[in-house]
Amino acid sequence: MEAITALENESATRTNQGTVKVFSKTIEVKTTERTDLLNISDEIRSFVEATGIADGHLQICVLHTTAGIFINEWQDALVTDMKAIIEKVVPQNFSYQHNEYPEFSDCDKNNAHSHLRNIVVGHSLTVPISEGKLVLGKWQRVIFSEFDGPNQRKVFLQVFGI
Amino acid sequence: MEAITALENESATRTNQGTVKVFSKTIEVKTTERTDLLNISDEIRSFVEATGIADGHLQICVLHTTAGIFINEWQDALVTDMKAIIEKVVPQNFSYQHNEYPEFSDCDKNNAHSHLRNIVVGHSLTVPISEGKLVLGKWQRVIFSEFDGPNQRKVFLQVFGI
Amino acid sequence: MEAITALENESATRTNQGTVKVFSKTIEVKTTERTDLLNISDEIRSFVEATGIADGHLQICVLHTTAGIFINEWQDALVTDMKAIIEKVVPQNFSYQHNEYPEFSDCDKNNAHSHLRNIVVGHSLTVPISEGKLVLGKWQRVIFSEFDGPNQRKVFLQVFGI
Repeated sequence: MEAITALENESATRTNQGTVKVFSKTIEVKTTERTDLLNISDEIRSFVEATGIADGHLQICVLHTTAGIFINEWQDALVTDMKAIIEKVVPQNFSYQHNEYPEFSDCDKNNAHSHLRNIVVGHSLTVPISEGKLVLGKWQRVIFSEFDGPNQRKVFLQVFGI
Repeated sequence: MEAITALENESATRTNQGTVKVFSKTIEVKTTERTDLLNISDEIRSFVEATGIADGHLQICVLHTTAGIFINEWQDALVTDMKAIIEKVVPQNFSYQHNEYPEFSDCDKNNAHSHLRNIVVGHSLTVPISEGKLVLGKWQRVIFSEFDGPNQRKVFLQVFGI
Repeated sequence: MEAITALENESATRTNQGTVKVFSKTIEVKTTERTDLLNISDEIRSFVEATGIADGHLQICVLHTTAGIFINEWQDALVTDMKAIIEKVVPQNFSYQHNEYPEFSDCDKNNAHSHLRNIVVGHSLTVPISEGKLVLGKWQRVIFSEFDGPNQRKVFLQVFGI
């Protein structure tokens, strides 16, 4: 199938221009399990709407190497499956050198899997803002993913727009 | 090897400044298979070039939790391999609670794998714009990835720049 | 646990506004192994700090389909594990059509795995800038990931901010 036939019902283009404003803030997220998923969508949305930015984007960055962030639906059964598939793709028990303390590694946390899961999931998201709202689909939620909890984590938020 | 010795032949830095303009639009993509990959690069490029933005970036966001977007080469054999590796990493058949309807889940779509593939692939891309063109390598194409088709999907585009 | 109880100790919001400046540059990275990981954080940081941008972000894009970029800790044992987990998730040897030259593919490089690893790892990063500094956690490093080396690779950098 040609992709050019795949695009239908385009909306009108919304345009805006002006002086850029930037709002930056670090929030903390407390996790309670070794692998823990948290829906932080409401807090993210509140920060964005308080800035009054009409058009631009929000950057969300987890400031750690053993925790990540992604977007998906927030449903109990699916959250269980997310943890199961992450364990399947990057198992906790594998022949990791990072866990060979002190022979190969200066780290005694036995957390190689926590680091490596972050490579698959990602540490950062960019979410557009349009007409003063975060642009997310009906079922899309921002999910913080702890891979080495319980822990207290820093997440940097930056709204950039006009 | 020291990374500092790895950087060679740097180009000159291009600079620009001015008032920011934002162009936002939602397009629809029609897919025809359960797992379907579509090269939407030409449509994306047309939108960007029509804005007249010289320097900035394009944000592309799939507004769904069972479809994603990524960049790679568009070659028939490789597209077949993409589908195969996605099935290998996140198999359609696995012990997913999300598919246990109505015992554990309120969803009867049997699409846990569709959600979980999106965590690996990602729902969003940022592509820079420089000198009025999308910055993509010779073989890089923007590939929409349907994980629960056939379907009609919304993709939000936002050009932000000067 | 309710996510709303998970957020504590929020920092004050930093705000800034003004005329946007954009700085764009392509750097080259030389790799020496088939699968090669390079810590390019110092070079990235130097570019950002030379722009004098106080608030905004850096976009880093690898302009290839067989190399990627991600953020993680840079520790020898962990780097070994990164290569091992990438080989586990997307093995070099699998039934790839892209490697069936000339029967199914016009490419004789035997590099299907190199392309497919890029889908999992990602080709691009956005890193915020705040108070003139890249916003990275204590252990976060920017890691270029070569999947089809030795090679000479192009990485596009764009600082966008005020």
